[in-house]
Amino acid sequence: MTHHGDALRPGETVLDRPLAADDAGLVFIGVLRTPFQIRDDCPRQGSFDGPECRVELRPEFAPALQGIERHSHLELLYWLHRARRDLLSQSPKADGEVRGTFSLRSPLRPNPIGTSVVKLERREGNTLIVRGLDCLDGTPLLDVKPDRCGYTVQARAKGLD
Amino acid sequence: MTHHGDALRPGETVLDRPLAADDAGLVFIGVLRTPFQIRDDCPRQGSFDGPECRVELRPEFAPALQGIERHSHLELLYWLHRARRDLLSQSPKADGEVRGTFSLRSPLRPNPIGTSVVKLERREGNTLIVRGLDCLDGTPLLDVKPDRCGYTVQARAKGLD
Repeated sequence: MTHHGDALRPGETVLDRPLAADDAGLVFIGVLRTPFQIRDDCPRQGSFDGPECRVELRPEFAPALQGIERHSHLELLYWLHRARRDLLSQSPKADGEVRGTFSLRSPLRPNPIGTSVVKLERREGNTLIVRGLDCLDGTPLLDVKPDRCGYTVQARAKGLD
Repeated sequence: MTHHGDALRPGETVLDRPLAADDAGLVFIGVLRTPFQIRDDCPRQGSFDGPECRVELRPEFAPALQGIERHSHLELLYWLHRARRDLLSQSPKADGEVRGTFSLRSPLRPNPIGTSVVKLERREGNTLIVRGLDCLDGTPLLDVKPDRCGYTVQARAKGLD
């Protein structure tokens, strides 16, 4: 994420001291393979009609995929590894309109974690083929969960047994 | 999250070496205040009709809330600080049925990050009053984003201008 390099746009504000990001640690469990090589390639928001993308799990985490095929939609969490983390308010369109970081879904945030709901097309070994991503090729993967909505439906159905 | 202490349930599997969680670092930007003091208090899933909860931002991040009131629903990310991280497959009900960690929304996962969509009731200074959380009181906050769905609607509406 280059945003605008280190230059601030008019009205943008940053933390007044370096961000200490050591309250907890993350492990990258895999990588996302998308057709989007630079930020300008990325759609504003992923679509279930979008291109197939690959969610490649590190082999040691593959056993945790057991049963994933029963879910049609998944929530993915990933690390927006190119994002600066100190912006408190930003001007996404560089048009002078500034908004707080937490009122935007911009990748530039204190903890640059992206979330997407994707459609699971199929599984190929340690890899999931999905549609609905909008992030850069090579983005580190943090988590795979059944989508919240699908999960609720399934829980309800089970309750009727 | 005590789950079952360190004891594994029948059929559960774990990583065969310690998890190295140092690929990226997180900053806790605040804390969640809920009525749920122990795991048994927590609802299975939060509800917009549930009790009011408090999202307390650390003062240095408060400027990033600018404009948050224009969103009726928010996505919150938080750190499930009591969860063990090495389970590859789990038996949530201890009934012998084992599923992969990534096919469950269990808090026990390599990167124990929880996500919830909540209804924003109001803002009081550095604190947001919301409904829809299901996590323990004292859970560290990682991120606040406009809900994906609401954001889409707004983007579409803007496109019609």
